[in-house]
Amino acid sequence: MAKYRHEALAVVLQVRPGTPRPQLSVLMLRRRRDPYAGAWALPSGPVEATETVGASVRRHLAAKVDLTQIAHLEQLRTLSDPGRDPFERTIATAYLGLVPWTSDPELPAHGAWWPVGALPEVAFDHRPVIAEGVRRLRAKLSYTNIGFALAADEFTMAQLRRAYAIALDHEVSSTNLQRILLRRGQLEPTGDVSASGEQGGRPAKLFRFTSRELEVTDPFAILRPNE
Amino acid sequence: MAKYRHEALAVVLQVRPGTPRPQLSVLMLRRRRDPYAGAWALPSGPVEATETVGASVRRHLAAKVDLTQIAHLEQLRTLSDPGRDPFERTIATAYLGLVPWTSDPELPAHGAWWPVGALPEVAFDHRPVIAEGVRRLRAKLSYTNIGFALAADEFTMAQLRRAYAIALDHEVSSTNLQRILLRRGQLEPTGDVSASGEQGGRPAKLFRFTSRELEVTDPFAILRPNE
Repeated sequence: MAKYRHEALAVVLQVRPGTPRPQLSVLMLRRRRDPYAGAWALPSGPVEATETVGASVRRHLAAKVDLTQIAHLEQLRTLSDPGRDPFERTIATAYLGLVPWTSDPELPAHGAWWPVGALPEVAFDHRPVIAEGVRRLRAKLSYTNIGFALAADEFTMAQLRRAYAIALDHEVSSTNLQRILLRRGQLEPTGDVSASGEQGGRPAKLFRFTSRELEVTDPFAILRPNE
Repeated sequence: MAKYRHEALAVVLQVRPGTPRPQLSVLMLRRRRDPYAGAWALPSGPVEATETVGASVRRHLAAKVDLTQIAHLEQLRTLSDPGRDPFERTIATAYLGLVPWTSDPELPAHGAWWPVGALPEVAFDHRPVIAEGVRRLRAKLSYTNIGFALAADEFTMAQLRRAYAIALDHEVSSTNLQRILLRRGQLEPTGDVSASGEQGGRPAKLFRFTSRELEVTDPFAILRPNE
């Protein structure tokens, strides 16, 4: 029976400061060797005999890009096209990882964060996997509490609104966002206010997510009994 | 570098007639050999060197359970626990397949449909994969048109309501379901009526799904601009 190399692959996304504006960005490494020398690839590495693919993703992220503070990690998709690696058949399982906006891991010289809307030349079949990771994040922002994995521990509604707008790539009303997240029990006020207001305004209330584990907060309400 | 067997695995679900009532059921095969001889397993088979995992799932379903009419097939999850197969390390990628309620494929003697709420002894790590397939179906019934893959080509609202209620395992209002699916453009009247009404009542209007490809019909409306 045929046997295959198996690779762990990570789409790590973060809302990052940037010029001319903050952007949803993905962590990539520039390839130094063929195939695809000079192109950019997602962090990846072989799955060892004694580990799951999920553990392998964490191990490679820690070893290759010094990334250990991942707020959320979930499986995205397994890629199995026979020609996807021109050297040898390799099956890869991709994970989506999210990093809070306060985190700034020290990347190796050949690593960089790329805005998901302006990617460079991407190696292998990694471009559609990045697109799938972005779609997954955007979908889950609407029906889960996944925003916790993008946010700092404490934040103002203005900061959170900006992060949602960047991640979703469209405007979000701060009032509306606050109303929805509070009603679903995702957010709670910390009782404190920010040290200084935005743009010299009044200090603003601080909030935090009530849970830092993924929860479906709007499950299928539409077809529920008594609806 | 380590290499592994890779298996394609299928969670095939159908709303099936049953005693004492119709139930959401999963297709399984009774194992004749160790490991897990006598227990029930999902249809599976090795991925060949020249095929994707998705193509492998279709090939094994056609060969092993004569199942070629799959209305929808999507990837669920890759299972990679090092001890999941006691004989040899095997990584498996599971797919969710849906079969219309009109379909009745001819199963081999060791095959059967089991109600997802009353499973027998299940081999390997297949039980949690079945649960994940059921969760995925239920979630997608609320925000996509995936009902097309459970339904006949044409149906009355009473028939569709019953299928949704069985798949979701809770009551669904026929009026509410019709309103939601029509508003989202998922359904259209065929212009015909059923030959005979239910329980001797008046003939009922027939409907069909407007598309038989998966479409997200309620995407993230909650955080949209102008909402």
